[in-house]
Amino acid sequence: MSHAPADALSRRHQTVRQASALRSLDALVITSLPNILYLTNFTGSSAIVVLTADRLRFITDFRYVTAVNAAVGTAAECPGLELITVEGSYDATLATMLQSMPSSRVGFEAGNLTVARYDWLKTTLGEGDSAPVLVSTEGVVERARVRKDAYELRTLKIAAEMLSRVVPGAIEEVRRGRTEREVAHAIDERLRHEGFAKTAFDTIVAAGPNSALPHAHPGERRIIENDLVVLDFGGVYDSYCVDLTRTVSVGQADSRVREVYGAVLAAHDLAIEAVRPGASRFSIDAAARDELTRRGLGAAFGHGTGHGLGIEIHEDPRVGRRRAEEVGDDEMVVAGMVFTIEPGAYLPGWGGVRIEDDVVVTETGVDLLTTSTTELIEI
Amino acid sequence: MSHAPADALSRRHQTVRQASALRSLDALVITSLPNILYLTNFTGSSAIVVLTADRLRFITDFRYVTAVNAAVGTAAECPGLELITVEGSYDATLATMLQSMPSSRVGFEAGNLTVARYDWLKTTLGEGDSAPVLVSTEGVVERARVRKDAYELRTLKIAAEMLSRVVPGAIEEVRRGRTEREVAHAIDERLRHEGFAKTAFDTIVAAGPNSALPHAHPGERRIIENDLVVLDFGGVYDSYCVDLTRTVSVGQADSRVREVYGAVLAAHDLAIEAVRPGASRFSIDAAARDELTRRGLGAAFGHGTGHGLGIEIHEDPRVGRRRAEEVGDDEMVVAGMVFTIEPGAYLPGWGGVRIEDDVVVTETGVDLLTTSTTELIEI
Repeated sequence: MSHAPADALSRRHQTVRQASALRSLDALVITSLPNILYLTNFTGSSAIVVLTADRLRFITDFRYVTAVNAAVGTAAECPGLELITVEGSYDATLATMLQSMPSSRVGFEAGNLTVARYDWLKTTLGEGDSAPVLVSTEGVVERARVRKDAYELRTLKIAAEMLSRVVPGAIEEVRRGRTEREVAHAIDERLRHEGFAKTAFDTIVAAGPNSALPHAHPGERRIIENDLVVLDFGGVYDSYCVDLTRTVSVGQADSRVREVYGAVLAAHDLAIEAVRPGASRFSIDAAARDELTRRGLGAAFGHGTGHGLGIEIHEDPRVGRRRAEEVGDDEMVVAGMVFTIEPGAYLPGWGGVRIEDDVVVTETGVDLLTTSTTELIEI
Repeated sequence: MSHAPADALSRRHQTVRQASALRSLDALVITSLPNILYLTNFTGSSAIVVLTADRLRFITDFRYVTAVNAAVGTAAECPGLELITVEGSYDATLATMLQSMPSSRVGFEAGNLTVARYDWLKTTLGEGDSAPVLVSTEGVVERARVRKDAYELRTLKIAAEMLSRVVPGAIEEVRRGRTEREVAHAIDERLRHEGFAKTAFDTIVAAGPNSALPHAHPGERRIIENDLVVLDFGGVYDSYCVDLTRTVSVGQADSRVREVYGAVLAAHDLAIEAVRPGASRFSIDAAARDELTRRGLGAAFGHGTGHGLGIEIHEDPRVGRRRAEEVGDDEMVVAGMVFTIEPGAYLPGWGGVRIEDDVVVTETGVDLLTTSTTELIEI
């Protein structure tokens, strides 16, 4: 179980109920596990939540029944949760429940439910006058999650401080003759030792030419003189993810390394300066991208400037270029949003630099959650 | 990248092409990442494959382009792969490609594609005479994956031997006064030290009453005299997952522990004996379940006897009770299938026992992949 207090969970339920009411839904079926965790503290791998105006029904199977019952009476208890044990299959149990709500409008999460599950449910519910009607919804719970509440901000702050404390040791693990994989394992061990339940994603240690691969897997390449080494790692603390990248020079950096590193750092700093409530997420991306372009590295920066994080390592908001399909009203960042700022420059054959921190939008501007130095480190 | 040789990949492509032809498909759009890895060796986090009778088009984004190109000319190269870099978004790139195939029948993976993505694609492709038609498919690639090929069996065998070698050390980590979490971290460290790229799932260390929770998270509970401790852990080696459980008694086991342990072990052994080509997966489950029932523990065994494993830690075949919706022809296990046998007995408040090994169906019967002793260990 995660540990959001009951009053935080109740407020989240209320927010989602209001959003459901706006869509004239009698019930919302939540199948996305991160959304279920957000609403109930449940950290298992299988469950369905059916939220109505006055009930929260929670379907899970035998494996988790004891754990859910064990949370009752503790600080992690989910208020109002009615536990229903799976009979047959999850979707059969869900269908039986929905059939007891004749003629209801039942929202489902179109961004999570597969076509196969939808088709089965629709066929099973049938099309009579009293059959529940399935209504496609997108991002109802995600839109609540994008603005972190006080409990989440406290948790993310603790997690980011833990991650920042790991950085000096992680850099110490970069040694000539070691393989990327060995360094990655040593960093993972430091993350656990610091108190993270697990890594937030597979740790990236990319040395030499591999540093030009933004999502390299650590391999058997040994670190040698003049390598750039990108270290990208994160941890999960009480179900919340934090994420950080630093790039290290093995030996004294030459002028080209200083130039590229300086450009990425300037892009990083300018993007953070651009963050404040009401700023467009596209403009935050542009702050980094324009600086890299001005320094001749625009084409070397192929990904977005950042991504939201929280229960998931990638969630809204996406801080990147405007896409063709993005027209509109959700481009402003608001207080309580937490995301990464991680510009990079990747030059195939030569190497790459990325510098990443986690920030929170405050009422007046921005706070850095991760706080380790961003100066170029030469080892 | 994973490392299946080119001839293995070509055979997999051929199998899927034949299955597509049987469904009169001009193309199959593969969005499931494990399926993409199976067909191409790609281990990144985003890609789409479009397989036609004579082409394999591979859509990925900037982050992975260099890695995919780097595989060209190596043993991990995917034969025939045409690399297409995302323009705009993945689904926009896919739609543009499909629009160049007028009036084609395009299969998609209904068990993977979400309703939101499907609706967007369908709207974008339109309904004119020349618009491609989307055709729902289920399990086309999964059905090929269920029967492991020689490369996969070699890989799984190596991985299972590695895992078996970890067991004595994992048991040594169980010590009075240590927390579950400390033991779990120590086991994870041993998995890495043995050569696994990562754990196959979050390691379970469940002590005392927690051992009655089949999917407990390791926590702060300290191990004390007379605890039963369930250790369930696995690793990923060259993209393939293996999985094993042992249950340890802290101090001398009393008669009740011996009784429950003996029942679970008998169920484990009988289920393995029931495995042979042509056996029903329901009958393998029944071999374990009936024995536990005979010994008064039927109700204490709430999950299935086993699950397939390979690229995913849970894949087909499911070795469990027949479900209402399962009628038919895919119940027989065949040579090349790899799955776990993991009966358990869980008595809330008292504790639990689970014993798990990985087996492969051979031409004549069954081989154990994991080989550590299943005798009751008292520490």
